[in-house]
Amino acid sequence: MDEVKVIELIKKTLKFSNENIVKGIDDDCAVIKIDENFYLVATTDMMVKKAHIPSILTPYEIGGRILTANVSDIASMGAKPLAFLVSISLSKEEANEKFIKELYSGLDDFSKLYNCPVVGGDTNKGDELVLSGTAFGITDNPIYRKGEVGDDICVTNDLGRVYCALALYYMLKENKISHSEFEKLCQKYPKIIEKLRKPIARVKEGLLMNKLINGCCDISDGLGKEITYFKNFEIYSDKIFKLIPDDVIEFCEEFNLNPIKVVLNSGEEFELLFTTSKFNKVKDSLKGYSKIYKIGKIIEEGQFIDGEEFYGGGYIHKW
Amino acid sequence: MDEVKVIELIKKTLKFSNENIVKGIDDDCAVIKIDENFYLVATTDMMVKKAHIPSILTPYEIGGRILTANVSDIASMGAKPLAFLVSISLSKEEANEKFIKELYSGLDDFSKLYNCPVVGGDTNKGDELVLSGTAFGITDNPIYRKGEVGDDICVTNDLGRVYCALALYYMLKENKISHSEFEKLCQKYPKIIEKLRKPIARVKEGLLMNKLINGCCDISDGLGKEITYFKNFEIYSDKIFKLIPDDVIEFCEEFNLNPIKVVLNSGEEFELLFTTSKFNKVKDSLKGYSKIYKIGKIIEEGQFIDGEEFYGGGYIHKW
Repeated sequence: MDEVKVIELIKKTLKFSNENIVKGIDDDCAVIKIDENFYLVATTDMMVKKAHIPSILTPYEIGGRILTANVSDIASMGAKPLAFLVSISLSKEEANEKFIKELYSGLDDFSKLYNCPVVGGDTNKGDELVLSGTAFGITDNPIYRKGEVGDDICVTNDLGRVYCALALYYMLKENKISHSEFEKLCQKYPKIIEKLRKPIARVKEGLLMNKLINGCCDISDGLGKEITYFKNFEIYSDKIFKLIPDDVIEFCEEFNLNPIKVVLNSGEEFELLFTTSKFNKVKDSLKGYSKIYKIGKIIEEGQFIDGEEFYGGGYIHKW
Repeated sequence: MDEVKVIELIKKTLKFSNENIVKGIDDDCAVIKIDENFYLVATTDMMVKKAHIPSILTPYEIGGRILTANVSDIASMGAKPLAFLVSISLSKEEANEKFIKELYSGLDDFSKLYNCPVVGGDTNKGDELVLSGTAFGITDNPIYRKGEVGDDICVTNDLGRVYCALALYYMLKENKISHSEFEKLCQKYPKIIEKLRKPIARVKEGLLMNKLINGCCDISDGLGKEITYFKNFEIYSDKIFKLIPDDVIEFCEEFNLNPIKVVLNSGEEFELLFTTSKFNKVKDSLKGYSKIYKIGKIIEEGQFIDGEEFYGGGYIHKW
């Protein structure tokens, strides 16, 4: 079984809903209507040690990461984060003062950054480290994964660094490079490693552009997967190329990688992918926070890259 | 390290809060103020296979249980459940259609029972089954773990069956009884097994008595632990005795257990423990839903059982 089949099965099995639920499983957040001007948005994201947590991350970074991954979904709805809950299953390896203190310091610092306090949790004993976070937010205008024909499709800041950082990590893990070579490469590509260690959710950006965009999602599984949520689109590799930073280009040359494929498969970037008919207004509103780049348009029918059928990308769990 | 130390350390490390947070980690739910008449309550509860899930439970029952454990915290705040999110880490053993379908059928049926739809989740691959649920609800009057001097301390329905059911389960697991003996004992004590398999959160009760009580918590870790949240109290074993059902008394006689100790240590009962100065009004309001029993009073100072210092009870994780 793979993740796609599991999720399909879950969606088929879960039948009950009620009049409060505006959006269930099919977006970055669930949306619950409280009244005409007030929607609660909620999301959950789980990190399991072997599958999600590169061993080079410090406990502090793990704490920041679980909060960022969840808050990023709130940001992508254009909502204001309210609070965060985190449950943890600790194995013997992590059940010590140093690990716990560092992990929760990371959580505390990032909760301050996003003005999203950690208000609760549950602690457990288990075979491996598992962190499960849930973030809530509020908005009067939840933004879904959609766009109108003719809308520009845009991305904040840049993409590609996380893929490169993970490529480096796997070279180390699979003994293709030594520890000292790894360290040297980290020094050569500091921003690449930084984006893996300390990704940032685009909360301010989501709030600032809420009334100017038609749709949005965050890039957690890679542009190649996220773009397909917008159903009908054409994107262009020369435009995508513009959001690849120089260090990623250099890294791709050094390690013989295709930079467009790198961008399409770079997950946990937490940049926002959005649709708008007001590109210039969005650009102005984000001044001082994030740059934005057009990568294509919403069209009537079909999925294309450079005029050819789109081949997709992104990460899927398999058992 | 034990759970108490871990939680202390976490509380000390998490410093950031803001003006919206009325209650953080110290109650059944976190409470977030939205406006004067609207408080969001939220809770999370994680189940790790080895530590929390008796192997006699079916996937359907596991699904019902994770929802009930979370919704019970909402009930204990006197709040109305809004929605539920559940993240899951599946090992190879559970990553099959039958398991997933049954688990989520349990979730679906119990979500209907509590009018609390499952609106989202995350699926992952891991070494062991971990389920992490988050429930949230709304109320105009959140009920905390407290009481006023002179208040009656009361419990809904009955206590003790879950402890007995787990005792039976451990007899089987440790080969003290055979499978056929276990089956016979299950037939002899059907309600004992039933309360382990299908516990019910007292949502209606929490809502009905919201304006009539001063404090409340749900019994998830055993009366002996939960009662200490009320700080100063005297309880009486002859009164506690009245909420022990006949089958528990019979079971205790058969297996030489002290029924009061059984009640104090019986966790995941999901009955409500509350304080009130209006016992009769609460009793009337719950007619047709739950019976209630007085077990003691809130006093000025100290913790007593039968006039002697209280010795406590309940379950604590250790690593």
